[in-house]
Amino acid sequence: MDSNLRVYLRKTLLHCWQEVLAEGIGTFSLVFAGTGAIVVNTISDGAVTHLGISFVFGGVVAALIYGIGHISGAHFNPAVTLAFWTSGFFPKRRVLPYIFGQLLGAIAASVLLRISFGRVGNLGATLPLDGNWLQSLVLETVLTFILMFMIFGSGLDRRAHIGFAGLAIGLTVGVEAAFMGPITGASMNPARSLGPALVSGIWQHHWVYWVAPIVGAQLAAIVYRLLSNEFKDTKPERRRD
Amino acid sequence: MDSNLRVYLRKTLLHCWQEVLAEGIGTFSLVFAGTGAIVVNTISDGAVTHLGISFVFGGVVAALIYGIGHISGAHFNPAVTLAFWTSGFFPKRRVLPYIFGQLLGAIAASVLLRISFGRVGNLGATLPLDGNWLQSLVLETVLTFILMFMIFGSGLDRRAHIGFAGLAIGLTVGVEAAFMGPITGASMNPARSLGPALVSGIWQHHWVYWVAPIVGAQLAAIVYRLLSNEFKDTKPERRRD
Amino acid sequence: MDSNLRVYLRKTLLHCWQEVLAEGIGTFSLVFAGTGAIVVNTISDGAVTHLGISFVFGGVVAALIYGIGHISGAHFNPAVTLAFWTSGFFPKRRVLPYIFGQLLGAIAASVLLRISFGRVGNLGATLPLDGNWLQSLVLETVLTFILMFMIFGSGLDRRAHIGFAGLAIGLTVGVEAAFMGPITGASMNPARSLGPALVSGIWQHHWVYWVAPIVGAQLAAIVYRLLSNEFKDTKPERRRD
Amino acid sequence: MDSNLRVYLRKTLLHCWQEVLAEGIGTFSLVFAGTGAIVVNTISDGAVTHLGISFVFGGVVAALIYGIGHISGAHFNPAVTLAFWTSGFFPKRRVLPYIFGQLLGAIAASVLLRISFGRVGNLGATLPLDGNWLQSLVLETVLTFILMFMIFGSGLDRRAHIGFAGLAIGLTVGVEAAFMGPITGASMNPARSLGPALVSGIWQHHWVYWVAPIVGAQLAAIVYRLLSNEFKDTKPERRRD
Repeated sequence: MDSNLRVYLRKTLLHCWQEVLAEGIGTFSLVFAGTGAIVVNTISDGAVTHLGISFVFGGVVAALIYGIGHISGAHFNPAVTLAFWTSGFFPKRRVLPYIFGQLLGAIAASVLLRISFGRVGNLGATLPLDGNWLQSLVLETVLTFILMFMIFGSGLDRRAHIGFAGLAIGLTVGVEAAFMGPITGASMNPARSLGPALVSGIWQHHWVYWVAPIVGAQLAAIVYRLLSNEFKDTKPERRRD
Repeated sequence: MDSNLRVYLRKTLLHCWQEVLAEGIGTFSLVFAGTGAIVVNTISDGAVTHLGISFVFGGVVAALIYGIGHISGAHFNPAVTLAFWTSGFFPKRRVLPYIFGQLLGAIAASVLLRISFGRVGNLGATLPLDGNWLQSLVLETVLTFILMFMIFGSGLDRRAHIGFAGLAIGLTVGVEAAFMGPITGASMNPARSLGPALVSGIWQHHWVYWVAPIVGAQLAAIVYRLLSNEFKDTKPERRRD
Repeated sequence: MDSNLRVYLRKTLLHCWQEVLAEGIGTFSLVFAGTGAIVVNTISDGAVTHLGISFVFGGVVAALIYGIGHISGAHFNPAVTLAFWTSGFFPKRRVLPYIFGQLLGAIAASVLLRISFGRVGNLGATLPLDGNWLQSLVLETVLTFILMFMIFGSGLDRRAHIGFAGLAIGLTVGVEAAFMGPITGASMNPARSLGPALVSGIWQHHWVYWVAPIVGAQLAAIVYRLLSNEFKDTKPERRRD
Repeated sequence: MDSNLRVYLRKTLLHCWQEVLAEGIGTFSLVFAGTGAIVVNTISDGAVTHLGISFVFGGVVAALIYGIGHISGAHFNPAVTLAFWTSGFFPKRRVLPYIFGQLLGAIAASVLLRISFGRVGNLGATLPLDGNWLQSLVLETVLTFILMFMIFGSGLDRRAHIGFAGLAIGLTVGVEAAFMGPITGASMNPARSLGPALVSGIWQHHWVYWVAPIVGAQLAAIVYRLLSNEFKDTKPERRRD
């Protein structure tokens, strides 16, 4: 049985523990920086500013893609991992380990912020403005559609200029945080929303930040495949980063 | 006749429906992000800031060039498409389909913002400051001249550093929005001005945002050809992106 | 005599009229955007912000390097042209034509701003804070030293990563404008200071913005040559961009 | 004995004087710009803003990597030099000369700021918020861990996209300054903290800014080695930049 467990673990988590650890460190950095900016903005009476928070989210994503992209593909987002899988660019057996690493990293970041600063505001939890969940559901779906479309276009399409995916995706995240942050929180990422929800206990409309990103990313996968003949004949695992 | 219609459509729209759809998605994203930033800035009592709006316009253009450039050439702007055509880098039969996709994408973005937020301010419509249309006509022409000159220089000239066009053009748009936005609206793009005009019903001096960008882009085409021996012998369709 | 004049002009200006026109358009764009941001910031009651003005200066320089670098080398600055010449990377007979184009472009931009907006503030003229010219002389020299050092390192050294010079130099200009703008005006460029001085009539301490940039750039040429064995054996005209 | 001294100096400092001078100029520029932004922000009643200071720190680091990276490797930070050494990418005999150049450059920048502006605020000295040194010790360690991880990932890993390390590392510095600056000062660099401490005489909790960066960078070296099979067999001096 002990042997069975070891075999089972090797088949699930351990076969790609380096990638999973990288995803954990990346998602930790993303949530630590991004929601940390929200927390520190409250502590410092708005010194960071909303534009500064958007810069932090976008900048850290761009940096992490350049620093970790060659190790794990730099997903840091369960919705992205799922869209890579369904579009044939990511092996099925890595999906759960990746999401496990992402959620753990996000939670660790939120726990560190909670310990360091105590209960400050909502610790970066995402909430629809005025409780209008339908508005946020639609807009978060559109935001994640655009983000995932950019990921496919700049990061996976072989005709794209090599190396610029980090800049393009970081800019997309930063831009979307800047213009929709005040309305929906501009999460586009279930892991980014889970961490703060867990340590702040704010679970209101939390499902929106799982459904919208996953649906938006899947829609982008469908539409991008339609547009790009390159993607037509994609076989699983052809490319991973 | 049905057959004739199908043949006609294939000759006009359908022969490049993937590119047209990509232009539509790109222009949708540009107008959704850019004028969305203006709308959300009003809703959030100025949280986005003018500099933030400029960052959104510039950042989304840069990201879209990296994500969509290899599919459609990333025009997202009828004035750019027309200047590419007259300078011999774009086939005549694609001009109208491209502009059709751009206008439709822009209108869709404005409709989504109108439905999501109702009538907020002027929904991002561009207006000359204090109604001084002559000032805006001249300045928008100069702004689009500079933008189109940068597009030719960084994106089409074969001596330019490959891959950096997205950064250069995004920076140009962001810079011009930052320093001339308060005066002219810094549209440089008829599609970007049409969408908000349609849903807000503000058509005052709207013609300025068609004439100035088109004239400015055409002037840039003439001047760039003068400067660059590379462009002297350009034959139509030699390059498209 | 007529023939002599034509020969003389061909030998001075006309032999590189394309490069000179490109320098003129580039310096026009730089001064139009940068000092335009200062003017519009005054008109719009500070909507652009000091950080926005710095972004405009840095962003437009980066964009212009990508758009014009392959035509003229993208100097846009007499101090840069002089340092390229003395360090052997630029032919002597092009120095005066280049500076002529730069000054003309800068003046044209200031004239356009003056006509468009009338007399707004000091129209972007650079002045030492509290008239402390010695402080500004020293600091402008240091600023231009750093800028010119970055130009040599990122743009001319063959070991540098190709293509990133525009980003590096634009960031340097943006950063220096951000942190020293309130003290010295962060000109680093005689052409950028001449245009606004001419149309606003503010000539106080104007010489500082000629002496400091030229001296700072020359010092950088000396020190960079010391550091880089690559540059030891540079022959004139080996490289120009 | 004179001969012995010369031999000793050649073995320690002189054998890499060009690299040490480059590190000095780079760290001078970093501290002059970054802490200069803090000083000028005080003088100009907050015109630079906290976000502007973060942009200056991040932007100057990115620019310096592109301008000096090919000469000295662009460390500008004793903690980085030590982590490069212990992970086998940097020769032991260069460690002390490099740190010597970095500290001297940082001190020179602080002295210049002190002479130019007198005693303004704390001249950019880093202090834990509310004297909570434990909080700053932990957070600075995490910040430097993330920074050093990005340096290894984007700058040394041969699978990373070439040329983008400057952008990635500059963004990391800018982001970390933006979101943790108000709490810890976001130093991540003993040299950057030493300069202002020396000229302002503020030595309170100064040890935090030596211990945390060094420990954080060493932890990143250990973890990155774990993640990357590339680094497993690294022999000293295989790569230096």
